[in-house]
Amino acid sequence: MSKYAIGIDFGTLSARALVVDVSDGTELYSAVSEYEHAVIDEYLPTGRKLPPDWALQHPRDYLISMKEAIKGAIEGSGVDPKDIIAAGVDFTSSTLIPVLRDGTPLCFLPEYENEPLAYATLWKHHGAQKYASLMTEHAMVRGDEFLLRYGGKISSEWSMPKIWQVLEEAPEIYAKCNRFAEAGDWIVLQLTGNITHNACMAGYKYFWSKRDGYPENEFYTQLDERLDLVMERKVGGDISPLGSLAGYVTEYAAKEYGLPEGIAVCVSNIDAHASVPAAGVLEDGLMVMIMGTSTGHLLLSKKDAFIPGVCGCVDGGIIPGFNSYEAGQSCVGDHFDWFVHNCVPESYEIEAREKGVNLHELLTQKAEKQRPGESGLLALDWWNGNRSVLVDADLTGLMLGMTLQTKPEDIYRALIEATAYGTRKIIENYEEHGAKVSTIIASGGVAKKNPMLMQIYADVCQREIKIVKTNQAPALGSAIYACVAAGKERGGYDDIYEAVLKMGGVNSTVYRPDLENSRIYDELYKQYVILHDLFGRGANDVMKVLKGIKAR
Amino acid sequence: MSKYAIGIDFGTLSARALVVDVSDGTELYSAVSEYEHAVIDEYLPTGRKLPPDWALQHPRDYLISMKEAIKGAIEGSGVDPKDIIAAGVDFTSSTLIPVLRDGTPLCFLPEYENEPLAYATLWKHHGAQKYASLMTEHAMVRGDEFLLRYGGKISSEWSMPKIWQVLEEAPEIYAKCNRFAEAGDWIVLQLTGNITHNACMAGYKYFWSKRDGYPENEFYTQLDERLDLVMERKVGGDISPLGSLAGYVTEYAAKEYGLPEGIAVCVSNIDAHASVPAAGVLEDGLMVMIMGTSTGHLLLSKKDAFIPGVCGCVDGGIIPGFNSYEAGQSCVGDHFDWFVHNCVPESYEIEAREKGVNLHELLTQKAEKQRPGESGLLALDWWNGNRSVLVDADLTGLMLGMTLQTKPEDIYRALIEATAYGTRKIIENYEEHGAKVSTIIASGGVAKKNPMLMQIYADVCQREIKIVKTNQAPALGSAIYACVAAGKERGGYDDIYEAVLKMGGVNSTVYRPDLENSRIYDELYKQYVILHDLFGRGANDVMKVLKGIKAR
Repeated sequence: MSKYAIGIDFGTLSARALVVDVSDGTELYSAVSEYEHAVIDEYLPTGRKLPPDWALQHPRDYLISMKEAIKGAIEGSGVDPKDIIAAGVDFTSSTLIPVLRDGTPLCFLPEYENEPLAYATLWKHHGAQKYASLMTEHAMVRGDEFLLRYGGKISSEWSMPKIWQVLEEAPEIYAKCNRFAEAGDWIVLQLTGNITHNACMAGYKYFWSKRDGYPENEFYTQLDERLDLVMERKVGGDISPLGSLAGYVTEYAAKEYGLPEGIAVCVSNIDAHASVPAAGVLEDGLMVMIMGTSTGHLLLSKKDAFIPGVCGCVDGGIIPGFNSYEAGQSCVGDHFDWFVHNCVPESYEIEAREKGVNLHELLTQKAEKQRPGESGLLALDWWNGNRSVLVDADLTGLMLGMTLQTKPEDIYRALIEATAYGTRKIIENYEEHGAKVSTIIASGGVAKKNPMLMQIYADVCQREIKIVKTNQAPALGSAIYACVAAGKERGGYDDIYEAVLKMGGVNSTVYRPDLENSRIYDELYKQYVILHDLFGRGANDVMKVLKGIKAR
Repeated sequence: MSKYAIGIDFGTLSARALVVDVSDGTELYSAVSEYEHAVIDEYLPTGRKLPPDWALQHPRDYLISMKEAIKGAIEGSGVDPKDIIAAGVDFTSSTLIPVLRDGTPLCFLPEYENEPLAYATLWKHHGAQKYASLMTEHAMVRGDEFLLRYGGKISSEWSMPKIWQVLEEAPEIYAKCNRFAEAGDWIVLQLTGNITHNACMAGYKYFWSKRDGYPENEFYTQLDERLDLVMERKVGGDISPLGSLAGYVTEYAAKEYGLPEGIAVCVSNIDAHASVPAAGVLEDGLMVMIMGTSTGHLLLSKKDAFIPGVCGCVDGGIIPGFNSYEAGQSCVGDHFDWFVHNCVPESYEIEAREKGVNLHELLTQKAEKQRPGESGLLALDWWNGNRSVLVDADLTGLMLGMTLQTKPEDIYRALIEATAYGTRKIIENYEEHGAKVSTIIASGGVAKKNPMLMQIYADVCQREIKIVKTNQAPALGSAIYACVAAGKERGGYDDIYEAVLKMGGVNSTVYRPDLENSRIYDELYKQYVILHDLFGRGANDVMKVLKGIKAR
C-alpha cells in the first residue's frame, strides 16, 4: 500500500502544498494559495504608511493559505489522508515573527496592530540595513572569526540586525515578545505545539555553527547593553538537524489545517535550501543552482574551510554530515526581466504577438542563432550588486562592445552570458579554496524554461549541467525531509541518503559543454575576469563614485 | 538695388541651392533635389553586385539635381536672375570621380558602365581600407612628418587610398582617366570650364600643406611603382585658397543649369567646412561644431602646431590666414537614433503617439527633469569608434552604472552626456596643445532641435554655446565664399571678414553653463576620463579582443 508525504513550501507570495508518493517521489497533486496581504511594503492593513525599503507580512495569511493549500492538495491528489505519514515545511528566511509565549504573533493583539515591527519582517525587508552595517563593522573590529563564514559581511536580510532594529525602533515590542520566531519554526509550532530551531536557519541567519554555537553574549552587549542574553531570552537555544522530528500534528492542528492527526512533522528549512534533496543525489561536490529572479549556489562539501566571498557556510546546514556553502548572484531572472521591460522596441513586441510567443522566447529565438562572441558584447552581471564572490551591493551594471549595429537580442544574450560568467567565477572560487564542485544540478523556473541559457551555462562553465525533475523542488525537498523525520517504522526512511535517492532526481536532459563554444567562451571569460577585477577589486572606484553622486 | 548670390550644397543624398541677399545674408529661398541613385552600395545601375562597405554614386545625378535645385531656388526666390552675382559650391569629400581630359566621368562611357570604380567613390566608401592601412604604416615607418597633421592615421575616406584602390583593382580605369577629380572641383569645372583644386580638400584629403606641398613622389612609388608621379599625372597641382575665383559661368553651363551666364564662381569647398563662414564671426579660437549624425569640430587658430588626435590641420583650409584644425566624434545623432530604434519599449512608443511627439522628444521630456548624476549612469561615446582624440575606429561603446531601476530615459540622457564629455575632451586637447578655444558656435540639426542637449554641452564644457542662425549653413557659407570671389566691383566683397560679418550670424539663444550643474558634471567628467584612458589608452585591450573574436 502506498504511503504519502506532504511538503509545504512558503514562498514570498504564496504557500504551496504538494502530496508525493513516499516510495518514489511521484508528485500526485499540488495546490497554491496566495497570501491575502502579499508583501506589505507601503501601508499596514491599518493604513499606516511604511518607510521605503520595508517589507512586512501578516502571519495570519500564512495560516489561511496553509489551510487552503493543504486542503486543495489532499483533495486533488485523491489519496486517503490515513496514508499520509508526514509533513515538512520550508519557508523564506529570515522572516521573523515576534510572538508571545504561546506563539501568538504580537500583531494579532489589537494594541499592536498599528505597530509595523509587530508584524513579520519578510526576508527582503531592508529596514535594518543600518544595524547590519554596524554589526559588520563591530565584528570586523573585534576580529570575530564567525564573520569569515559569511563572506565578511552581515546582511540586513538576516535575523540579528532585524531583532536589533526592533529593540531600537519598537522597544515595547522587543520587551513584550517572548521570542522572535523564524516563520518556518513558527509554522511547525502551529502544527506540533513544539518550538524548534533548525540548523539551516540558525546557521545561515543567526551566525550559529555546530562547533562554536552562537556568537558570545558580549558581541551583542557591546553593541547595545539591552541586547544582553538576546539569544537565550529572545531566540532560544536547542538546534535540530535537518530532517529531524519536530513532533506530531496535534488534534487542534489536524482540525484547523486539515492534516491527519499524529503524523510526523519535520523541523523546517529555508526554501532554497530545501531544494537540494530534490536533486536526487547527495555527495561531496554536489552544487545545486536554484535559478529564479536571483540564483543561489548551494554546495555540499566535506571540505571545512573559510571560503571568501560566500554568503554562508553551515556544517549540516542542508544535510547532516556535509558542510553546506551558499553563494549567490543577486540578479538573474530579474536581469532578463529588466531588459524585456525597459529595452525591447515595439517592433519586437509586435513580432512576438504575431508569432504568439513572449518577448523572452522571441529574443531567445533570435539570440540562439549566434555563435559565442559574435555580438562583440560583454557585460558584468551586477545590475543588483554582486553577492558572490565580491560581496558588494554597491557595484552596478556594465556593458561594453556596443556598436551602431548592436541589436536587442545581442544585449539579451550578453546579459545571459554575464550571469554564466558570474556562475563560473563562483565555481572557481569554491574550487580555488579547496571545495570541489563535481556535479551541477539546476532547479527553478529559469533553469526549466530556457534551454539556450542552460547550454550557455554549460559551455561557459565547461561542466555538465542536469536539471531537477520536479517543478516544486522546495516542496518535494520538504516532503523528503519529512519522510526521514517519520522514519522507516512509520513508513518513511531512516536514512536521508536513501530518501533522496528514491524520491528526488533529475530529468533526462543533460546540458553538455560544446567544445568549440567552450573554447571561445574561455577567451571571453578571460575578458570578463579583467573587467570583474578592474571594477570589483578596487583598481578604480568609478561605480562607487557614481553611486555617491546619485545618492546626494 | 539688392544683389544676390547662390550657394549650392551637395550632400550625401541631395543637392540644395540657396538664394541669399548679398547685403545681409537674408535667405530668400532654397530648393532641394535628391539624387536619383542615392548611394549605390548594393548594386550598380547595371545590376552588378558590389562588395560590402562600398559606397558609390552616379555623377550624372549631381548634374540633374543641381539643375533642378538651381531652377527651384531662383524661381522660388522671385529674384531677377540678372541680380545674381555669384555662385559657390560645396561638396562631400573625398568624393572622387575618374574623368577624361574633357571632364567626362568614365562611368558615362558605355564600356565602363559595368565597372564600379569608374563611378564616383563617395566619401563613405570604405572599400579602400586596406590601402589606407598600408599607407599609414608606410608613413609611420618612413617617419613622414605630414602624418602628424592627421592624428597619425590615414582614413580610407580620403583620396589617396581611393586612388590606389583604383590602380590595384581597376588598373584600366587608372590608366584611362586623365585625372581623379574631387566632385566639388568637378562641378566647378562643369560651370566654368576651368579645373581647380581648393586648399580645403587638398589639405584635408590629399596631405597637402601650404608650406610643404604634397608628399614627395617617392612616398607613393615605394608603395607601388605604378604610382610614379601620381600627383602630377592624376591629381594636378595648383591649389586655390578658399573664396578665390574659379571662373565665370559659361554660355553652355548657363543654358544647361540655369545660372546667369558670366557670373563669378568660387572654388569649391568641403560641405562641413563651408559651414564655418555662416557662423558670422572669424577669429582666433572660433570653434564651429557641425552636429549631425556625427560631429565635426572645426577650429580657426593662429597657432601652428601638430596637435595629436585631430583629423587634420590645414593652413588656410577654411579661411586664408588661419590654421584650421578638424576634430570629430564619429557618432552623435547616430548614437541617439540607434537607441531610439533598438532600445525603447513599446509603452514609450504608445505614450509618444498619444502625446503627438516623436521618441526623441518624449525621451527628452522625461530626461530633462533629471539633475546631473541622478541616474548613476556613465557611458563612453564610442559606438562608432573614436575619431578624436584617440583616433581609434576599433573602440566600442561602454555603459556603466545600470541597476534594475534604470529607465530608458536614463540611458538616453547618459548617451547625450557621453557625447558632451567627448566634446570637452576635444576642447581640452586643443587647448593643452596651445590652440585656444574662445568661442563655440554650433550648427546642424542636432544643435537646432534639442535645447536640453545643448544645455548639457554648455554645462559639461563649461562654455557658452551659440547657435548658427541659418538652417543651411553649408549653402550659406558657399554663397559667402562666392561673394568674395565676385569681389566688390561686381557687387560682392573684397574681404572675407566683411562678407562673414554681414552675411553670417548666430541666433539669439545662448546656452550658458549652469554653475551647479557644471560642478557636478566636473565630477562626472573625471570618471569619464578614467574610463576613457582605461579603455582607450591601452591599459587594457578588452574592446580589441572582443572585436577580434567577433571578426573571426
